[in-house]
Amino acid sequence: MAMAMVCLSDFEAYAKKYLPKIAWDFFAAGADDCSTRDENILAYKRIHFRPRMLRDVSMMDIRTKLLGTEISFPVGIAPTGFHQLAWPDGEKSTARGTLLTYSTCTLEEISAAAPGSLRWFQLYIHRNRAVSQQLVQQAEALGFQGLVLTADLPYTGKRRDDVRNGFRLPPHMQLKNLEGAFEVCKMNDRSEYGLPPNSLDPSVTWNDIYWLRSLTHLPIIIKGILTKEDAELAVSHGVQGIIVSNHGGRQLDGGPATIDALVEVVEAVQGRVEVYLDGGIRKGSDVLKALALGAKCVFIGRPALWGLAYKVSRLIGHKDESDNFICYHLNWKQYMVLIQQFHSGVTNSSEVHVELDAADV
Amino acid sequence: MAMAMVCLSDFEAYAKKYLPKIAWDFFAAGADDCSTRDENILAYKRIHFRPRMLRDVSMMDIRTKLLGTEISFPVGIAPTGFHQLAWPDGEKSTARGTLLTYSTCTLEEISAAAPGSLRWFQLYIHRNRAVSQQLVQQAEALGFQGLVLTADLPYTGKRRDDVRNGFRLPPHMQLKNLEGAFEVCKMNDRSEYGLPPNSLDPSVTWNDIYWLRSLTHLPIIIKGILTKEDAELAVSHGVQGIIVSNHGGRQLDGGPATIDALVEVVEAVQGRVEVYLDGGIRKGSDVLKALALGAKCVFIGRPALWGLAYKVSRLIGHKDESDNFICYHLNWKQYMVLIQQFHSGVTNSSEVHVELDAADV
Amino acid sequence: MAMAMVCLSDFEAYAKKYLPKIAWDFFAAGADDCSTRDENILAYKRIHFRPRMLRDVSMMDIRTKLLGTEISFPVGIAPTGFHQLAWPDGEKSTARGTLLTYSTCTLEEISAAAPGSLRWFQLYIHRNRAVSQQLVQQAEALGFQGLVLTADLPYTGKRRDDVRNGFRLPPHMQLKNLEGAFEVCKMNDRSEYGLPPNSLDPSVTWNDIYWLRSLTHLPIIIKGILTKEDAELAVSHGVQGIIVSNHGGRQLDGGPATIDALVEVVEAVQGRVEVYLDGGIRKGSDVLKALALGAKCVFIGRPALWGLAYKVSRLIGHKDESDNFICYHLNWKQYMVLIQQFHSGVTNSSEVHVELDAADV
Amino acid sequence: MAMAMVCLSDFEAYAKKYLPKIAWDFFAAGADDCSTRDENILAYKRIHFRPRMLRDVSMMDIRTKLLGTEISFPVGIAPTGFHQLAWPDGEKSTARGTLLTYSTCTLEEISAAAPGSLRWFQLYIHRNRAVSQQLVQQAEALGFQGLVLTADLPYTGKRRDDVRNGFRLPPHMQLKNLEGAFEVCKMNDRSEYGLPPNSLDPSVTWNDIYWLRSLTHLPIIIKGILTKEDAELAVSHGVQGIIVSNHGGRQLDGGPATIDALVEVVEAVQGRVEVYLDGGIRKGSDVLKALALGAKCVFIGRPALWGLAYKVSRLIGHKDESDNFICYHLNWKQYMVLIQQFHSGVTNSSEVHVELDAADV
Repeated sequence: MAMAMVCLSDFEAYAKKYLPKIAWDFFAAGADDCSTRDENILAYKRIHFRPRMLRDVSMMDIRTKLLGTEISFPVGIAPTGFHQLAWPDGEKSTARGTLLTYSTCTLEEISAAAPGSLRWFQLYIHRNRAVSQQLVQQAEALGFQGLVLTADLPYTGKRRDDVRNGFRLPPHMQLKNLEGAFEVCKMNDRSEYGLPPNSLDPSVTWNDIYWLRSLTHLPIIIKGILTKEDAELAVSHGVQGIIVSNHGGRQLDGGPATIDALVEVVEAVQGRVEVYLDGGIRKGSDVLKALALGAKCVFIGRPALWGLAYKVSRLIGHKDESDNFICYHLNWKQYMVLIQQFHSGVTNSSEVHVELDAADV
Repeated sequence: MAMAMVCLSDFEAYAKKYLPKIAWDFFAAGADDCSTRDENILAYKRIHFRPRMLRDVSMMDIRTKLLGTEISFPVGIAPTGFHQLAWPDGEKSTARGTLLTYSTCTLEEISAAAPGSLRWFQLYIHRNRAVSQQLVQQAEALGFQGLVLTADLPYTGKRRDDVRNGFRLPPHMQLKNLEGAFEVCKMNDRSEYGLPPNSLDPSVTWNDIYWLRSLTHLPIIIKGILTKEDAELAVSHGVQGIIVSNHGGRQLDGGPATIDALVEVVEAVQGRVEVYLDGGIRKGSDVLKALALGAKCVFIGRPALWGLAYKVSRLIGHKDESDNFICYHLNWKQYMVLIQQFHSGVTNSSEVHVELDAADV
Repeated sequence: MAMAMVCLSDFEAYAKKYLPKIAWDFFAAGADDCSTRDENILAYKRIHFRPRMLRDVSMMDIRTKLLGTEISFPVGIAPTGFHQLAWPDGEKSTARGTLLTYSTCTLEEISAAAPGSLRWFQLYIHRNRAVSQQLVQQAEALGFQGLVLTADLPYTGKRRDDVRNGFRLPPHMQLKNLEGAFEVCKMNDRSEYGLPPNSLDPSVTWNDIYWLRSLTHLPIIIKGILTKEDAELAVSHGVQGIIVSNHGGRQLDGGPATIDALVEVVEAVQGRVEVYLDGGIRKGSDVLKALALGAKCVFIGRPALWGLAYKVSRLIGHKDESDNFICYHLNWKQYMVLIQQFHSGVTNSSEVHVELDAADV
Repeated sequence: MAMAMVCLSDFEAYAKKYLPKIAWDFFAAGADDCSTRDENILAYKRIHFRPRMLRDVSMMDIRTKLLGTEISFPVGIAPTGFHQLAWPDGEKSTARGTLLTYSTCTLEEISAAAPGSLRWFQLYIHRNRAVSQQLVQQAEALGFQGLVLTADLPYTGKRRDDVRNGFRLPPHMQLKNLEGAFEVCKMNDRSEYGLPPNSLDPSVTWNDIYWLRSLTHLPIIIKGILTKEDAELAVSHGVQGIIVSNHGGRQLDGGPATIDALVEVVEAVQGRVEVYLDGGIRKGSDVLKALALGAKCVFIGRPALWGLAYKVSRLIGHKDESDNFICYHLNWKQYMVLIQQFHSGVTNSSEVHVELDAADV
């Protein structure tokens, strides 16, 4: 191997070097000045551990359960679109995490690629409610175990480089899940990322959670919550889980880093539903900080795409699942010790707790 | 278009490239070390949104009213001088915003160029009070709807690059509004920006508001207020509006960023008069932050000049009004959603509020 | 003039370019990492004005009195050594400010050069007390109006560049004031800046103020105070003035910026003696901040040396006194307005007050 | 001497230039992003002195006692491994400080090289307890005066450059202390720094302090404590001393700087045992800050290695002991004044105290 890959930043550098600029820019993009995208990462540096010594850390077990289903470690793949930009095989290679509506593989293809995985289906609500209803019911039929409703996309954020690059989905990459639904739409240059313009419904409100509930027995996880007020609303409307997320800083610039928002959401929720987080996870220590501040598990987005890009150009085979592949490079060793203390009851959360800087609390 | 213009920074870069250095330096200049000029922009980055989700944002209406007159969105053009440095057509092209005394077009020319706009007349008080009285009465006769008294210019700030460049108004650019008044003055090299030295009156006090009131029925808006103490004085002396401004950092270096000063002014005023702001607005999110912190509308200064410079060199026609043109590039889309919630009553200000960092409150 | 000199930084750049490296390094040097030297300047940026508007600032008078003697503006020249490194004429050209023991001109020469100026004599206490006694009595006889006892030099700070450069006072630059006293000493390469090693007395204590008082009727000003505890001791031992100083960061690295220390000293002193400050003054706004925080006047050190270096190379005549020359470039105009409000009683200190950042108070 | 060596940074630059890259990288390495390694140094800059003046500092005595044994100044050499990477003579040249298990000299060699020094033996606990027991008893027999149990190494931190470089101990550098113990192990490329993989015991707990106590009469000092909770446990388990340490940031990234952790450890311990510190000491002022915040002495790690590297390439003889050599360059002069006040009772700790920034307390 010409270049030693020892941490996720190495994969980032690799992907930046080998991906076409338009694809790299699309994956890297943040809204406006990219402040929130960058804050997602910087905020972890303001959080410090209070390391404890001389505990028996000879046994490590970092399995956890998401809504009752066991996963081998508390990191999943966040929904990120258009994986075929990074790898011809597309989402099939990242099927072990949650999945996305705007997929360049069909649900059947994805479902078949990862039969034994935990699979949640990620959903936007369209102006044409029949489209969303059809997707929900198809997902349930295919054995998906949860529905992730992304709440922070009434309109698409302005990613300057995408505008400069005139980013459009290449013609051979179809949005397969939606093909039928939008076949009457002509894709013109006002389309947004391959969707007809304004196909998402900006009038969605909390009451639509009830409508969604009427369509399916799957647990509903809401993604995009950043405040205690919305966390309270999520609980009172009956969701089973909350993903604290700012869409990787791609939607609204100027909101909080997710690790900062996590604190108030966890405090508001008081354990009534599970809380997860995505945004800025680059190291095992970041995972530990999120867990210690109350997240049940975290999701990684861009790093999974970097891993895909690496696999393509290195001709790494299918068996080497990209999520494990990437997670290995999170550098678990030191932090698993602490994470397992946290999970196993050897210690409790206050003993392995992290400490936010005074300025952040 | 060779260079994609997707945000105001692109216009800034364009203007810096194409304007003569002496004109660029004059527009860009701040007093002394330019700390306050730069703080105006940096301060917005310390203010974070608390984004709320799942509200019906399908209808957007961001009209507002300034002293009873409706404007289509809450952004106006701040008075900035010597527009002919950027465009031969000068202030006539920016006539939709407020206007300036030190104009290189006559009031009649400006008034004729934008007959249907909201037009406020910006005023300095001269040692020769007759000059100011004449300007006030002429403005009222021409249909201007408000008088903006700029209070922060007893002496001109030291802008180092202007001194280095030996900045003088080019001979063909006359200060038309004042031509008659100063015809007896010989312009020598001690003149300040085309005015005779020391023409502004440094002895102006709050009592001069009463004198101004005696000259006109127009509402008086005071520009340059940065403290709660002065805000209280402004209200008690009967002004109708306050523009929180530090003159773009061109006058006094070391004062607060305007977005920081806004908080205490709004709290002191308690809704008795309207409060506006200028300084550092570069994105829709900046506008939203100002509105959420209590401004009724904001004004942009330098970006309007960048827009003018762009129009000149691109030969863009007159119909494309520079204020709309520039405001389009503020990237409204995401933020209009939030702004309209703020305005329409769908939500109230505490729900779409922004949160100042602890360190700033 | 090839290069426009519009602010003190321009003189700094000029001096750096034209002075021999060894002389520039000596003047610029700070102890160890130079943190305190740099903090002296950075600290002003954390202090913000709360500018007030619409006050009559037509009359400006910024005279002040130091221990009863009027000076034309509240800025003096701090004692800095070895002026002949910058100008053959040495201290005679900066004679309007306070003066220094380690002078390359004799006291008589200095005294004759500036007969009408306020002149304070700066003193170190030597192991050989007779030397100090002789200097004190000579200074009083020559009409000096105050004694400045520098308290922060029990040992010399380590200025790395001086060590690297092997800095020694050139042979033609004699320390004239001390010539007689040290004539029996052989200057070898262990001498410190032309003095025999260890000539200063590190056993000096507060009781030596009483000894000094017994030698002279001149008021005693103590220089180098940085804490409220020492300020209290200074008052109780009968000094007439305190200069808050950290020796330009040349002695001890890691102490406070002088503008930060000023606050606690002023509060401790409660007006019982006059308080002055040196360190980091580069702009009129810095002067104002110091005055508003309670300094009666400030002293500038390195900038006076830059001015000397400029005068030498530009062949500027003697009449153009370097202190006025430099002070002109502090950019008084805007700040005199505020300073005179502060002094004249038009406003009081709380009205023109500056505001320390919350983090600094 | 071609390059003046005036501070420890100069030795750092020298070592970086002359050491083989793989050795430099190994010494310089920090875990993961190296945040904690860098914080160790940066944290000192946030701590300020409150310098007091006019005290008799003519007599300086900075001797101190560690567990009853006098040392000439309060700085020791921290255990750092593999000195032969920097100097053929290895640990024999740094024998005046504490020592290390993973030594490339035998205990007998080290003991013979520095017969009169204070020597503590640094210990890890191995899965094979017999190895540790043998080392402890050998150390006691050889006259070592204390046992330092390093507690923060259940697993080795990930130092990215070492992974990239494929760092392995060169074959001629044997880990002499452990030779016998591990002779049955085959060193393959999964070995960790010359030790068989997983030789250290991750199941060590506080109860093992009692086991260690049963083996020896030597005082036990625990190294790696960073919290008040662990400090309390250390005292209650009967250790005689605590070294606040984060292993130079080599183990866990994201913990506190040691100077920050010192404050809570000292407060918890309340003088019941001695507290020391390592990490980030580069100047005499750093030493003083640590002492003023409650450390009895500090240890330096990497700088000792830089000094060794310098001695090798400069052919400096053995007599010039590297610890004194390096400590000289800490620049004691100014700070000894303050340190001796602190130690001698001329002043007490509150008078020479340092002040943590508000944000850090």
